[in-house]
Amino acid sequence: MSLVVVGSVAYDGIETPYGKADRLLGGSATYISLGASFFGPVKIVAVVGDDFADSDVRLLEEHGVDLEGLERAPGKTFYWAGVYSKDWNERTTLTTDLNVFADFNPKLPESYRSSPYLFLGNIQPALQAQVRRQMPGARLVGGDTMNLWIRETPAELAQTLRDWHVLLINDSEARMLSGENDLLRAARKILAMGPQTLIIKRGEYGAALFRGDGYFVTPGFLLESVSDPTGAGDSFAGGFMGYLAGCGAEPGDHVALRRAVIYGSVMGSFCCEQFGVQRLAGLTRQEIDARYREFQAFTQF
Amino acid sequence: MSLVVVGSVAYDGIETPYGKADRLLGGSATYISLGASFFGPVKIVAVVGDDFADSDVRLLEEHGVDLEGLERAPGKTFYWAGVYSKDWNERTTLTTDLNVFADFNPKLPESYRSSPYLFLGNIQPALQAQVRRQMPGARLVGGDTMNLWIRETPAELAQTLRDWHVLLINDSEARMLSGENDLLRAARKILAMGPQTLIIKRGEYGAALFRGDGYFVTPGFLLESVSDPTGAGDSFAGGFMGYLAGCGAEPGDHVALRRAVIYGSVMGSFCCEQFGVQRLAGLTRQEIDARYREFQAFTQF
Repeated sequence: MSLVVVGSVAYDGIETPYGKADRLLGGSATYISLGASFFGPVKIVAVVGDDFADSDVRLLEEHGVDLEGLERAPGKTFYWAGVYSKDWNERTTLTTDLNVFADFNPKLPESYRSSPYLFLGNIQPALQAQVRRQMPGARLVGGDTMNLWIRETPAELAQTLRDWHVLLINDSEARMLSGENDLLRAARKILAMGPQTLIIKRGEYGAALFRGDGYFVTPGFLLESVSDPTGAGDSFAGGFMGYLAGCGAEPGDHVALRRAVIYGSVMGSFCCEQFGVQRLAGLTRQEIDARYREFQAFTQF
Repeated sequence: MSLVVVGSVAYDGIETPYGKADRLLGGSATYISLGASFFGPVKIVAVVGDDFADSDVRLLEEHGVDLEGLERAPGKTFYWAGVYSKDWNERTTLTTDLNVFADFNPKLPESYRSSPYLFLGNIQPALQAQVRRQMPGARLVGGDTMNLWIRETPAELAQTLRDWHVLLINDSEARMLSGENDLLRAARKILAMGPQTLIIKRGEYGAALFRGDGYFVTPGFLLESVSDPTGAGDSFAGGFMGYLAGCGAEPGDHVALRRAVIYGSVMGSFCCEQFGVQRLAGLTRQEIDARYREFQAFTQF
């Protein structure tokens, strides 16, 4: 079943201990859409400038991403540049040019509104809520947020979260949102804010799923080497939501949710293997399923 | 089947964000022996001073630990004191008084030598090798080491490792020993040094097992709150080796090794719940098996 993805489409300048590249296709909606595209139809809602390359349009089209909701605005596409420290522990932002993304006002095409699945990438909570209201009948709604909104617009964020089935954030965001250092306590507080399911991403250490009636933890995939972790969290979200949409899962389906966490981990791990979206763009469903089976093999006891 | 454990017995002064206590029973051999004692007979080889309390002797006896190899030397028991940072990320040593441990020369009682299982806690590699030579027929030999020996006595350590079936170290030690930052590459290099099986402990993030023919990764147990992580790594070693000895496992038994990693994780997690050996001392096999089943429940997909 189809999945609507809202977020940013950007050009990224990335420097890692292993290389450097500029104006790579990036942005949360790009990674989420590509990650989800292997599981079923995806419809994107985002804005780009008049510098957005035809080759990037084609890349998304080739992955079956519906671009009716990809607005073209006069001006430049959102540009971000950053550099990773040698041990990967720090990422320093060098440039953030919001450009056309500064006035992003997501508009859902009529053809999108009956989609049963919606994922709200990291944008202002008020905009996320506005999109959510346009899909009142969605079967399963998930979303992401970040430290900026937790700090700057906590009331709007709290209001927005109440209407989501799944919140998907990383461990430092979970600690900040809950004010608790301990993961179990943080999860309990966040679940009380509204979402039935909380996914906490832990980078190379894996991910955890929390619900009122239980939890699930998976280790991360041990990568031979990391080229570029940019977009790994969004690729996780894409694999997670894409899998759920692909099998038409209900929000309370424990088994599907656990498997979705593994598919999220699979997509996040692939993302790190090459710069930008390169590895995701060249993936096959066979490779994805093979890595899923690797997860089964290296975690069973 | 019986397990011989060699290492330190100490008194610890510990300060954590949640409390402070002095002269707590500690030391690697103590934690390993107590951790292993729930699975089968344990025989300890260590040295204590004339200040070693009768109540501590009784505690070990009550857990069925054979004390024939616990030497009493004139002088004071090894004393260590340290303080944990607020976020648990750093541990600063305040005092290290080796006392009688400075001249520790492990002597294996005749009755120990036919034990099929041997675990060499973290002491000088040359002493570990000396003990190993006294049990040439051991079915499964495991051992631990630390950054001090990796840095100061690399040749002796390399020589010693060659005769072990299992090396059990933490992630920073694995990086230091291999000179590789990446865990998979580090593991490959270390396996080439001799041990058939390498266990890398990753603190709260769990543990990984590496062999030439495959690997296994488990996340850590999510603790409600940590009181004192002192001894968690040694408790892991105790659960790991105790389980293998308890079921008479061969060194190449994949299934038993994976389960042993989970039992190790279970014992390490319990250890953190109270100060010193308090939680281990009060445990039951029922609680241990219940937590093992929790691991099954929260990792299955």
